[in-house]
Parts: sequence; structure tokens; C-alpha cells
Amino acid sequence: MKKSIGAKTIVYPTPVFVVGTYDKDGKPNAMDAAWGGICCSSPPCLAISLRKVTYTYENIMAQKAFTVSIPTQDFVSEADYLGLVSGRNEDKFFRSGLTPEKSKLVNAPYVKEFPLALECRLLQSTELGLHTQFIGEILDVKVDMDVLGDGNFPEMGKVKPLMYAPGEHKYYAVGQCLGKAFSLGKNIMSHT
Amino acid sequence: MKKSIGAKTIVYPTPVFVVGTYDKDGKPNAMDAAWGGICCSSPPCLAISLRKVTYTYENIMAQKAFTVSIPTQDFVSEADYLGLVSGRNEDKFFRSGLTPEKSKLVNAPYVKEFPLALECRLLQSTELGLHTQFIGEILDVKVDMDVLGDGNFPEMGKVKPLMYAPGEHKYYAVGQCLGKAFSLGKNIMSHT
Repeated sequence: MKKSIGAKTIVYPTPVFVVGTYDKDGKPNAMDAAWGGICCSSPPCLAISLRKVTYTYENIMAQKAFTVSIPTQDFVSEADYLGLVSGRNEDKFFRSGLTPEKSKLVNAPYVKEFPLALECRLLQSTELGLHTQFIGEILDVKVDMDVLGDGNFPEMGKVKPLMYAPGEHKYYAVGQCLGKAFSLGKNIMSHT
Repeated sequence: MKKSIGAKTIVYPTPVFVVGTYDKDGKPNAMDAAWGGICCSSPPCLAISLRKVTYTYENIMAQKAFTVSIPTQDFVSEADYLGLVSGRNEDKFFRSGLTPEKSKLVNAPYVKEFPLALECRLLQSTELGLHTQFIGEILDVKVDMDVLGDGNFPEMGKVKPLMYAPGEHKYYAVGQCLGKAFSLGKNIMSHT
């Protein structure tokens, strides 16, 4: 028997996306977004939702571009900081000691110290209520060599991304690998 | 120095959302979606992206409703199976031994054995390319009592959700708690 806890935005996992943008003066900024995810395979697209009051909202609207960098767990304090203050009031790259790396594909910076970064061109924005959803086409994925595994893909166990738990307001690490997708369930299929 | 791996849908973590629907004859179906996430806090909304060829696409279009159940890691094989076959060809609830529980709020079933379920009313659908994005308003969240922690919220460490790693095509478990959000980064702020 399940208990009702109301109409809440609680689902697991949610990501810790660090959204990189430039403001109108070319100052780099980064903020956290837990509301988002991949939304299309072809063209490859990613969605992030932001409140209108954020500095990043303004920047994406002006530049039509953003990046998403994936912080590794060693940088959990820096990642948390990026969600605590606005780029209007503080130079968050400077304060956190993180380095903005200018994308060659879009007018937005990604975080050099984080192992995985997606460079996105704004395709559309939709007002949903408190949040606006931005959909960006992923033009490229940049990866640190030391997190690449077999098949030239970054391994989740090496990237060590953060997971955010809404409600609890806590960060979690990735645990053990549980096995291969499109494989573990084959014994349940009627035709194997 | 980062390496370019091309325009790929690789980001960590992505969720394993089990999307529950009824078909036109009232037969329950469930499928996996890794492309999705929360997209608005008010109204509380969740986005999932599906290909048009899926049975679930048809069902959501017809019923204007769906649920998202979060499988716990003990059910990783069942969850994987739900992504391997189409509900057009197999009764996936029957084969997997999972139980469809009819939502009282929307015309869609959730998975009784999974600890967390969101009941959603379709708000909009957008064709993005290979995938169509469905945005649903979260009308309620149902939680198993044994995963509730302090503050009446499900604890991620108790829910033990799955994480999917695109590219690698592997599932991962949740690891240790790394600390409190909106807190770890306070020492970096200029005004504390």
C-alpha cells in the first residue's frame, strides 16, 4: 500500500547539470540545473528548465547557446556553490576556482575541471510556469581522456557524476555497476 | 585537454523511468524511458521523450495520461525487460510478474512493486525529431512507506533507483550520500 505525498517534483535520479553561458559583456557564468535530461536522439537534444529570474535565463536568450558540464564528485562543494548564488552578484568561476573554457562551436563556456561537457545550440524555449524549458541541440560532447572506457565512451564509474535528490536536498554518488542494459531482461522474454 | 566524441546523447546520470499506460482496450503496459526529467516546479511537471513507433506513444495520445514508476535495483532485470519488447507483442506485466495498480487520479497504471510512482496528466506533446516529448503535470506522488525518511520524503538511499549510462548501455546503483545541497558550497560564497 502506497502513501500519497502530494503533487511534488520528486523523482530519482535527477542530474546535477552545470549550465555554462556568457552574459552580454562576455563574462562567463555557471549555474546548477537538476530539472533536465536528454529529450531526443536525432537530432541529439537536451532539455534544461530554468526560472526566469536567473542570470542564465537572460544569457541563453541573448546568446542562443549554452553548455552542460557534468561535475565529478570531487567537486561537489564547487557544484553546490554554483547553485547558491547568482552570477549577477558574484563571479562564480573566479570564486570557485573553476576555469571557463570557451567552446569553439557555440558562444558559451564549459567547465575545464569537469570531465564531460555538452555544447548546445538553442532550438526552442517553452514557458511552462515557474520554469522555462530550453531545448538545445547537442553539437558535440567533450570528454577528458582519463574517463574514456571501451568503445570511446565515457564510463559512468570513471566520470563519477553527482545525483541530486529533491525533497531530501542531498547529493549522492554513483554506486556499483548492476549489469548490461538490453541484456539482463532477456531471460524474461517469451522468445529468446 | 578534452577529446571530442561527436554529437551524442551522452550525459550522466540518466534515469530509468518506467512509463505506465493503458491501451485502447484497457490493457496495461509499461516501458522504459531514459530520456526525461522534471521540467517545471509549478505546476509540477515531468517530461519524457518517446519514439512514435512505441505502443506507449499511442496510449498516451489516446488516454492523455501516464505514470512514471521508479524501479528499485532489486528489479533491474524486470526493468530491463520492459525496454526489450513492445506491448504490442507481449503482455509485459504478465511476463515480468509485475502488478499494474490503477491510478485513481489518471487513466494509467503504475507498478505496485516499485517504491515510487508519479501520476501524470498530459499537458502537451512536441515533435522534436526521432522523439516526441510529452510533458505531464504531476498530480500526485505515491511512495512505499518503507522508503520514507525524515520530512515525509522518500530517501534516495532507500528507494535505490537505477541509473542508466548511455553509450556504455549499463545500469548503475546509487552510491553513498555526499552531503547536503545548498550547504556544502557555502564556504565558497563571498558573503556567508
